[in-house]
Amino acid sequence: MPDPAAQALAGDPPVLAGDPQALAGDPRALAGDPRALARLVSLAENAAPGLRPVMRALAPFTGRGWVIGLTGPPGVGKSTVTAALVAAFRERGQRVAVLAVDPTSPFTGGALLGDRVRMQEHATDPGVFIRSMATRGHLGGLSAAAPQALRILDAAGFGVILVETVGVGQAEVEIAGLADTTLVLAAPGTGDAIQAAKAGILEVADIFVVNKSDQPGAQEAVRDLRTMIAMARRGEGDWKPPIVTTTATTGEGIADLTARLDAHWSWLASSGERDRRRLARARAEITALAVAALAVRMGGLPNGTGLDSLAARVAAGELDPFSAADELVAAASV
Amino acid sequence: MPDPAAQALAGDPPVLAGDPQALAGDPRALAGDPRALARLVSLAENAAPGLRPVMRALAPFTGRGWVIGLTGPPGVGKSTVTAALVAAFRERGQRVAVLAVDPTSPFTGGALLGDRVRMQEHATDPGVFIRSMATRGHLGGLSAAAPQALRILDAAGFGVILVETVGVGQAEVEIAGLADTTLVLAAPGTGDAIQAAKAGILEVADIFVVNKSDQPGAQEAVRDLRTMIAMARRGEGDWKPPIVTTTATTGEGIADLTARLDAHWSWLASSGERDRRRLARARAEITALAVAALAVRMGGLPNGTGLDSLAARVAAGELDPFSAADELVAAASV
Repeated sequence: MPDPAAQALAGDPPVLAGDPQALAGDPRALAGDPRALARLVSLAENAAPGLRPVMRALAPFTGRGWVIGLTGPPGVGKSTVTAALVAAFRERGQRVAVLAVDPTSPFTGGALLGDRVRMQEHATDPGVFIRSMATRGHLGGLSAAAPQALRILDAAGFGVILVETVGVGQAEVEIAGLADTTLVLAAPGTGDAIQAAKAGILEVADIFVVNKSDQPGAQEAVRDLRTMIAMARRGEGDWKPPIVTTTATTGEGIADLTARLDAHWSWLASSGERDRRRLARARAEITALAVAALAVRMGGLPNGTGLDSLAARVAAGELDPFSAADELVAAASV
Repeated sequence: MPDPAAQALAGDPPVLAGDPQALAGDPRALAGDPRALARLVSLAENAAPGLRPVMRALAPFTGRGWVIGLTGPPGVGKSTVTAALVAAFRERGQRVAVLAVDPTSPFTGGALLGDRVRMQEHATDPGVFIRSMATRGHLGGLSAAAPQALRILDAAGFGVILVETVGVGQAEVEIAGLADTTLVLAAPGTGDAIQAAKAGILEVADIFVVNKSDQPGAQEAVRDLRTMIAMARRGEGDWKPPIVTTTATTGEGIADLTARLDAHWSWLASSGERDRRRLARARAEITALAVAALAVRMGGLPNGTGLDSLAARVAAGELDPFSAADELVAAASV
């Protein structure tokens, strides 16, 4: 019988390999073991076969962490605000994980992920875990990988999990669906508010942050946002998104921001909205995985009933897409 | 037996109501009947129950039109370029349809759809059909509605169908998947090229258009794009996206643009890429419809196997999402 300690010293203790039984003990040990944690997140990122038993082992430890999403157009200072929030939560003694989701273009690789330099001050803090995750522009990939990565960080015992998204548009709306609280960032003088409205990301905001508030145009940006907030329909007891101005490079406004975050967290609990959001998140997650499983099954059907031959008939005008979908569903359900 | 002419005068001839049998005669008559056509497109937009028999009747008439997608950030002049292209194709005697897809925000309604004034010169031309379609930020809605609307316009006999998308990011990438030829527009001095790279839309471009080329920074924009094109990996015989500079308000560069478009259309045919793209499009369309059908079925499962109770168990940490998805698929496949 191998000595567990010797096994650990041999360089691959069970927890590092993502051994489900080891994890089922107390996955919170992962928070102190960044290498093991990084490996598990990679399992999620690559949708590796080993992911399923790991998620099964971790399930009972999930649902504790506070997921805060940060979103907004490039250049708005997302990394700087994230770093400032990490520092603020660390001062309270909370463990903080940062997941940066990057809808990478094949043209550029990860090079546009941005200036991560502000984050480096936290890189040596054992209470902080920082990870980038590439999604390569596939919404399906994002839907599948990001929620599992968040579950892993949650089970690992991080009290606060910051999800920062680069890019604009639908990917951000999707990421916002994963968060308990979503911050939408804008910078002065850029028309960010208008852009956000066009991309449909304004309505996902729980808190607006006008960063770089020392630059000209900050008051106009606040005013634009206030107008847009006033235009939104809200019911009795609904959360009204506040606007916070920050200069994250100096720390200006960060205390106000954390106070607003705490207020939203309290409201989530007292209104029942936290449970509603988490249920909705679980529904979306299950559906995405079920749909992925069915899509795999559909792609692997025998000739004649398979997707390729149906597609050829639709392209040739022999069949309409609805009838083709019916045939596909019937074939997949046998 | 009712007299067809009298029926037509009564205000609701079969073709106007989208009667499948009437359509199966010759749907190309629709091109001369904008009211009838508008009704059919509304069926697609609303995913109305009457859509299925219509699509069945139209299937044999599809596959003829050339779908050209125009995409790029707001303010780049998409409407102006679209209007200039409409004029150019009309001069050749081709019938042209324009579908403007708008990822509308609930905050703003359709107000941000933009300046459609340039399009009004074509509004009275019976060879031109112009239609906006709202998608309300739902990718599912866009996936389902836009391809069906394109099929309707194609069956109606429009030789050229221009699809213009407002907004940035994933929705545009998705729309590009519907087109035979995709134009990506940029304006000088805005960093559009960089933004496009971040949003992952550069790689869908068949032709780059730097519009407003009379403004400062046009040459820099061309240079930025050239650098990014050079960075992309391409195989032997692959299409290399050209960069065209236009000032659509004066018509400058539009002749060059149509020449490039024609060259791409020829390449699509000679390389076999047109058939490949259309097959891929049919596959995506069928899968989206099949998945939507399965999602409806999953939502309607009896308690205990249904999505809601699975989601509650996942949110409570009693079940992991993969096992929940397995249960859902098993229940949906019975």
